[in-house]
Amino acid sequence: MTLDLSLLPDGGMSWLDASGPESDIVLSSRIRLARNLRGRAFPVRAAPEDLMIARDEVLAVTNESAVLHPVTMFRLDELDLLERQVLHERHMISRELAGLERARPVRQGAALLTNGELAVMINEEDHLRLQSLRSGFDLERAYGQLERLDSEMGSQIPFAFHPEFGYLTACPTNAGTGLRASVLIHLPGLVLTKEIAKVLQGLSQVGLTFRGLYGEGSEVVGNFFQLSNQTTLGKSEEDLLDHLATMVRQVVEYEQRARVVLQREAPTVIADKVWRAYGLLRYARSLSFEEAMNLLSGVRLGVGLNLIRDVSVYTLNKLLIFTQPAHIAEREGRALSDPELPISRATYVRRLLEEDAERRGPGGGAD
Amino acid sequence: MTLDLSLLPDGGMSWLDASGPESDIVLSSRIRLARNLRGRAFPVRAAPEDLMIARDEVLAVTNESAVLHPVTMFRLDELDLLERQVLHERHMISRELAGLERARPVRQGAALLTNGELAVMINEEDHLRLQSLRSGFDLERAYGQLERLDSEMGSQIPFAFHPEFGYLTACPTNAGTGLRASVLIHLPGLVLTKEIAKVLQGLSQVGLTFRGLYGEGSEVVGNFFQLSNQTTLGKSEEDLLDHLATMVRQVVEYEQRARVVLQREAPTVIADKVWRAYGLLRYARSLSFEEAMNLLSGVRLGVGLNLIRDVSVYTLNKLLIFTQPAHIAEREGRALSDPELPISRATYVRRLLEEDAERRGPGGGAD
Repeated sequence: MTLDLSLLPDGGMSWLDASGPESDIVLSSRIRLARNLRGRAFPVRAAPEDLMIARDEVLAVTNESAVLHPVTMFRLDELDLLERQVLHERHMISRELAGLERARPVRQGAALLTNGELAVMINEEDHLRLQSLRSGFDLERAYGQLERLDSEMGSQIPFAFHPEFGYLTACPTNAGTGLRASVLIHLPGLVLTKEIAKVLQGLSQVGLTFRGLYGEGSEVVGNFFQLSNQTTLGKSEEDLLDHLATMVRQVVEYEQRARVVLQREAPTVIADKVWRAYGLLRYARSLSFEEAMNLLSGVRLGVGLNLIRDVSVYTLNKLLIFTQPAHIAEREGRALSDPELPISRATYVRRLLEEDAERRGPGGGAD
Repeated sequence: MTLDLSLLPDGGMSWLDASGPESDIVLSSRIRLARNLRGRAFPVRAAPEDLMIARDEVLAVTNESAVLHPVTMFRLDELDLLERQVLHERHMISRELAGLERARPVRQGAALLTNGELAVMINEEDHLRLQSLRSGFDLERAYGQLERLDSEMGSQIPFAFHPEFGYLTACPTNAGTGLRASVLIHLPGLVLTKEIAKVLQGLSQVGLTFRGLYGEGSEVVGNFFQLSNQTTLGKSEEDLLDHLATMVRQVVEYEQRARVVLQREAPTVIADKVWRAYGLLRYARSLSFEEAMNLLSGVRLGVGLNLIRDVSVYTLNKLLIFTQPAHIAEREGRALSDPELPISRATYVRRLLEEDAERRGPGGGAD
């Protein structure tokens, strides 16, 4: 295993440190800009040698980037499957760049540059995907950083740009601003009060869309939703972000209101639910990823409601990432069989929760 | 509340102290003898004044009993409903004597005499029910004690006895020896391996019968079964007891074998099951009696398999008794509403398990 994520600040996980605004409900804010090199075929159509040329052209600039400094690079076409899966599970690269789709293996010249919060994916669907990822509900600061990176790079690399359509992209749905912003948000209150369908429908009517934890087509587990803008064209970056931020702020309010209702109408049912989830995570000997996500959702709600004080939000965030298959295999130092995986997952979950409970001392869970 | 069970050795619960043989599988052994006063109408047909006369006739003897000494008396017709329920839940009196059946209120002159292990119920279905109750699988010693009581009383009270039919009883199924012996046994292994139906069918073919935790007609919860002899006539007391003991010994062996198989074939499934049960009991905020029984069954299996070392069998036994409605109301000092009951139950379960875990120190549950 050559992958050394520890070179990154906090292993590239600072976006999960729960330091950002509203971080018990909004886990993270992410913005990406799709950019392409002027006069070069999009990666999906480019010949291998062109992909390498495109990559080197970008690297020549990024290696000197003041905004990215200090930067770490991963050449994905030199990493094995497990290493690419780890990067994907850590939300650092897309499934596409990781080459995880059966029909589309990892692309030659595919690379990731990152300093933890800012990243550049090279030879994804587009030549460049600039990305900013921050803890909590913090789109403004995320965009501030990303804009600096975009300006710096745009001043040195001629991007494919059309005066009428804006930035050109491999997929027309990304053209224009090339901007996609999303927040990863935890909505157990709206799910429990059965208002979630109405809320999601409302969002789709104002041009927003939702997905599960792991990008397009991924299922919603553990009441975690990624909310993002649907359109990229015909509006300025600021307008798109303002619109998303306004809507997310409203969803956060709905969620908070739902939690108040639950606490008022069914305090015992809620307390029972969140503590049972905690009890199962503390003691189960086998956990599927889906069950772990659902139980973590319960515990997160309990922490948010101040019922459970034994666990930090950071630990809950870490568990979202480190209970995934590639992370488990990496920790065990080998590929695990299907029956071994849920056992190792449960062992890890127990250890982290026990450590938290010990750190917080006895009585931390009393209520 | 006038009921003072604390006057009894360990509150009349010594049969639950897990000190007897095989006490992780066989919770207790109980034998009762049905006896009636010669020349007096059976209680079900007696006039109130005759019931009082019968009672006083028995009390004159039991008050001086050397075998029962020191004895505590409860006049059931002077206790309120909750107090009678507590005695019933503690397995000290039958539903009939407690007057818990809607159609049959408590009978005048109904009384209980007990020294903890030996007891005499007065004016139950029969004038006298002599009873011996011991921890674990210990029919022999239970009968030894009971025989001494029976001889002592029989020498002073003329019992209704027919040279051909033996002891006469209100219900003909009890005539002859008047003996019913039973063991309370925990068979989660046979339930999990799905062999239980076969085993129970085999028992019925050799004249044994089974019921749930609380006597005739009570449902099986938590994999606890009461196995007892069906017939009381045509065999000597010793033969009846030998037969039951032989069969129970075999069932205990089947259960042990089933546990070995489970541990060999599905160790993770079993460990996961018992630890999840423990986790839920440690943290749930609301527990129905049935769920509590089922979870306690899981934990008991874990303790029996030496997977869980945080809990004593005695604590598990106590929880069987003290999580019942009347015991909860007694502890809270008032009648509880339907929604309050499961909350109070869960609080009590948590407290006892926490105390056990603290007593055993950290690491007791590690494996």
